[in-house]
Amino acid sequence: MPMEQIVERVAERTGLPLNTRTVERVLRALLAHHDFWEIVDAADEVVPIVAETIRVLDEQGWLRVEPHGIFLRESARETLEREWGLRPLPDFRCLACEGRGLDPRRLPSEGIETFMTIQAERPRAIIDYDQGYITPESTLARFAFAFMRGDIQGRRILVLGDDDLVSVAVCLMGEPREVVVVEIDRRLVEFLKYWADRMGWPLTVYSLDLSQPLPASFLRAFDTFLTDPPESMAAFRAFVGRGLAALRGPGSAGYFGLTRREASLFKWHQVQRYLIEQGAVLTDVVQNFHAYVNWDYAPKTRAWRLAPVKSLPDKPWYRSSLCRVELLTEAVGEVDTVFDVHTFNDAEASTT
Amino acid sequence: MPMEQIVERVAERTGLPLNTRTVERVLRALLAHHDFWEIVDAADEVVPIVAETIRVLDEQGWLRVEPHGIFLRESARETLEREWGLRPLPDFRCLACEGRGLDPRRLPSEGIETFMTIQAERPRAIIDYDQGYITPESTLARFAFAFMRGDIQGRRILVLGDDDLVSVAVCLMGEPREVVVVEIDRRLVEFLKYWADRMGWPLTVYSLDLSQPLPASFLRAFDTFLTDPPESMAAFRAFVGRGLAALRGPGSAGYFGLTRREASLFKWHQVQRYLIEQGAVLTDVVQNFHAYVNWDYAPKTRAWRLAPVKSLPDKPWYRSSLCRVELLTEAVGEVDTVFDVHTFNDAEASTT
Repeated sequence: MPMEQIVERVAERTGLPLNTRTVERVLRALLAHHDFWEIVDAADEVVPIVAETIRVLDEQGWLRVEPHGIFLRESARETLEREWGLRPLPDFRCLACEGRGLDPRRLPSEGIETFMTIQAERPRAIIDYDQGYITPESTLARFAFAFMRGDIQGRRILVLGDDDLVSVAVCLMGEPREVVVVEIDRRLVEFLKYWADRMGWPLTVYSLDLSQPLPASFLRAFDTFLTDPPESMAAFRAFVGRGLAALRGPGSAGYFGLTRREASLFKWHQVQRYLIEQGAVLTDVVQNFHAYVNWDYAPKTRAWRLAPVKSLPDKPWYRSSLCRVELLTEAVGEVDTVFDVHTFNDAEASTT
Repeated sequence: MPMEQIVERVAERTGLPLNTRTVERVLRALLAHHDFWEIVDAADEVVPIVAETIRVLDEQGWLRVEPHGIFLRESARETLEREWGLRPLPDFRCLACEGRGLDPRRLPSEGIETFMTIQAERPRAIIDYDQGYITPESTLARFAFAFMRGDIQGRRILVLGDDDLVSVAVCLMGEPREVVVVEIDRRLVEFLKYWADRMGWPLTVYSLDLSQPLPASFLRAFDTFLTDPPESMAAFRAFVGRGLAALRGPGSAGYFGLTRREASLFKWHQVQRYLIEQGAVLTDVVQNFHAYVNWDYAPKTRAWRLAPVKSLPDKPWYRSSLCRVELLTEAVGEVDTVFDVHTFNDAEASTT
């Protein structure tokens, strides 16, 4: 029984809205749990939907409902894992704070070590492209977060600008189906290509300026995008808007960083209105999720000119939130729009 | 120089939007830090605004800009602390996960102990009011989160429904100006009144049904609201909408819980559209922030009837996110609307 048919039947019987991602979340929960309440907890879907999905799967002979729990049949498990590529979701929630935070040290230690070795050789941030990368721990945390939400393993992933090297963490530990990076900085393009070749990763890197449209083949082609744009509304549309247009549709997810250092809550409000209108729902907004490595070109920035005291920061001060959206309908996003790069920084900006 | 005048001058000179809350955040940061970059980090406001606010305060003789940092003058500090009631913000970020999570164990241990003693005697959750309270650790975490965001100390706070006893944590540790609880359950009203009297808290408790309008005196009267509504759109409007109408205006903040157990992402999208249209911006959405204590009446619920296996949950499975909004304009909210309580549970609901 194909996914779409399960969705249809559950929708018919419950009268509730859902999409393939809904059913997928229930299936992944069934791969890991047997207790109904634990399944609901892991699926993060409403009880009537979870119950009805289980009933439909039961009717199809995919599982057994027994007095002590719910068990996928071996044949169904194999179909889900081999043919559909579904795995149980990993758990990286922080053990110290009851899971309110996320602890990237729960990632496989070998993966962490390799990532740290590779990132140590990265090109330095330069002002030309308004670069400024997050700490390697922050990149690992962003990757772990998306992995835990089911947006990495088995997915086609688009990274729009990758000075944070999130594609490296994804390829090392995330078992993606495919990763595409578009990046304006030739040094980064070469760096990522070198490692993709050497490690045999399913990673393609394109040299591309996001003020210009994405290739047509990118539209409706990805399950997940990740980006960390400059913070004017124009830049947000150029990066996140193109990301949205590149997503396949309902159930696809996007990640972006947004600061309070260069974006006021007034701009946040505009950003959120844009997302809502695109049919995207905000599932996560975690303040101060990423810390940035202080950049070498600090004394050339507007922030420096504005600073009443001219002393270099001696610890991270520039942080950004992690925001995740999930599409409920196909998004229009930004397809043909060409942006003027001079609009990528507005009057709230200060890092160039 | 009154707050409004600082706002005006900074707005004039920067051409950027801001409100009194913006300046307040800079002032609280100045109470705790001297390094410009640390001030920006703590203020969570854009660099040009922080820099210009410091310049205006400097012109007024409120601070000294020196080669090694920025220092509030003693007289200004006294005005801010005594007359304006501003304190530096406390920090409860989890030390294990680089502050991505929040650890309520960083609250004063005496306050935690007293809270645990008081909550142990609470009335049990009953099905009549769709009750189900979060673990005491979750209540402490919600309180600590709001405290850290500057929404507790010195504030007028409205709690719409308080079976979670957040007002107890607020009164014990948060130094609020005033707390008002509206609650339908007489047992809880009596319980809270008893402790307010005994401890001399600035807490008033009203017996009130939120399907009905709030007293007119509540409109535009509070800085902060906290609520954990049933999860139909009607209930959301009755609880959060009334909360919004009770907020003073720009810079006021609201907190609510929202689950994935009884609210699909489709409903989340409706909720977010409503908030955006009310002039509220979502500053935080933290999934699985609260865990619920399993309720005694579980076998009487729709969730139980839907469960394919009839076994009681033996650990927490019902969780909710913590969402925070901040107003950028006055919200209309829900003032005169009377709701039918039968609309407080919809087809996605299952806990009654």
